[in-house]
Amino acid sequence: MDRTSPSDAGAGDDTLLALGPAIVLVEPQLGENIGMVARAMANFGLSDLRLVKPRDGWPSEKARAAASRADHVIDGARLFESVEEAVSDLTYVLATTARSRDSFKRVRGPEEATDELRLRMGAGQKSGILFGRERFGLSNAEVGLADEIVTFPVDPSFASLNIAQAVLLMSYQWMASSARGRLPPRFSAPEAPPASKDDLYRLFEHLEEELGRRGFFRPPERREVIVEDLRALLTKAGFSEPEVRMLRGVIRSLTRKPADGDEK
Amino acid sequence: MDRTSPSDAGAGDDTLLALGPAIVLVEPQLGENIGMVARAMANFGLSDLRLVKPRDGWPSEKARAAASRADHVIDGARLFESVEEAVSDLTYVLATTARSRDSFKRVRGPEEATDELRLRMGAGQKSGILFGRERFGLSNAEVGLADEIVTFPVDPSFASLNIAQAVLLMSYQWMASSARGRLPPRFSAPEAPPASKDDLYRLFEHLEEELGRRGFFRPPERREVIVEDLRALLTKAGFSEPEVRMLRGVIRSLTRKPADGDEK
Repeated sequence: MDRTSPSDAGAGDDTLLALGPAIVLVEPQLGENIGMVARAMANFGLSDLRLVKPRDGWPSEKARAAASRADHVIDGARLFESVEEAVSDLTYVLATTARSRDSFKRVRGPEEATDELRLRMGAGQKSGILFGRERFGLSNAEVGLADEIVTFPVDPSFASLNIAQAVLLMSYQWMASSARGRLPPRFSAPEAPPASKDDLYRLFEHLEEELGRRGFFRPPERREVIVEDLRALLTKAGFSEPEVRMLRGVIRSLTRKPADGDEK
Repeated sequence: MDRTSPSDAGAGDDTLLALGPAIVLVEPQLGENIGMVARAMANFGLSDLRLVKPRDGWPSEKARAAASRADHVIDGARLFESVEEAVSDLTYVLATTARSRDSFKRVRGPEEATDELRLRMGAGQKSGILFGRERFGLSNAEVGLADEIVTFPVDPSFASLNIAQAVLLMSYQWMASSARGRLPPRFSAPEAPPASKDDLYRLFEHLEEELGRRGFFRPPERREVIVEDLRALLTKAGFSEPEVRMLRGVIRSLTRKPADGDEK
């Protein structure tokens, strides 16, 4: 772990990821929660973790264990004595709150907030997000230090997110906001191209011939309509060439007599 | 646990919320995780929790404790013996996977996936999302039962979401997609709704039985792989109930002996 180049930590190749917002935990109580926060961040390419007076001290073995393998985030975490110190190098700070507050600050949803974060980052600004204590969140004074408030669209009748969950959602939304618009599904399956029409038509003919021999088209004057439905059904999926080949094998097999030695 | 009135289970007063996707946990191991899943769901107005063979049994006091106060989700959870059973009343099923898979299924990001879920719900369809085991996720056969795959835009160098985190993200995105209030541009609701999974699975069984009797699965040790491919192929088109009925008629017909008086 190279602690002299914090901007590279865990961010992979993409410089944009390395520029993600700092995650600032204010007086977190449980090491486990800090670990789960690190894990959440690492999943979405964030690595700048800042701790303001963690109750049970730092470093924390419980945090490391809960972080799964997000050691780079745990190792790179920095300690501060106050929120003011923790955000001193930032230019745009969001405070997460669970409840609405008497405040004149602008309140954003996560999506709008991460859009704003990206905008600021694009302009070379450093940003951060404050998360409060497990028990009572952020004090009014701490919220007062932030530029804007971000809150989650939770069901008002059941609002109960812990800090690790809140960090997970913001980290996810941060990553999602980069993908939005372009949305390159990273794991997109190699979409097999549809079979040629010729392949498809030979499948139709094969099937229709075998069905015709078995009296499928009844009454005969409805043959055309039924064929049309069948073809529509077989066209719908855009079957690939291997899929068409498999279907022809299925037809060949089904029209055979069951043989000894096959499954019962 | 009331297994006799599935449609009422745990749904709150709000009809829209009650229409959210079912969350299906496949062989979850730890009660704590199930509880955290319930808590995540409750935050975002989801309540239809389905458990396929939870390892440590059900009900679970650990689950209840971890659920915070999401008792309505825990109390309404339903138990199933298989994924097939758990999704039998649904018409659109997403499988969450962490890794790319050799599959011809369409892969969506969470945002796109929840847009699709809303579209389907708007058309009166019932949907669900499958989440795999803590250790190794979903089997290929289980993924094969789903219509499409949803995966998270995680950092490829650190992909480590547990099931509670994955459920939290999908639940959040579900809520966020309603807040966005915009529908995906691409297609309007499908003309005929897809058949229920139960109908589809009976088609699978019918076809596989007839093929098995005719030695289609060769060599026998490849049976599972071939079945998987077949099912993927038959799932792809999102066949409607009349289409599934037609396909079953096709199978019945093909497995008959050609008779006199039929077409030549």
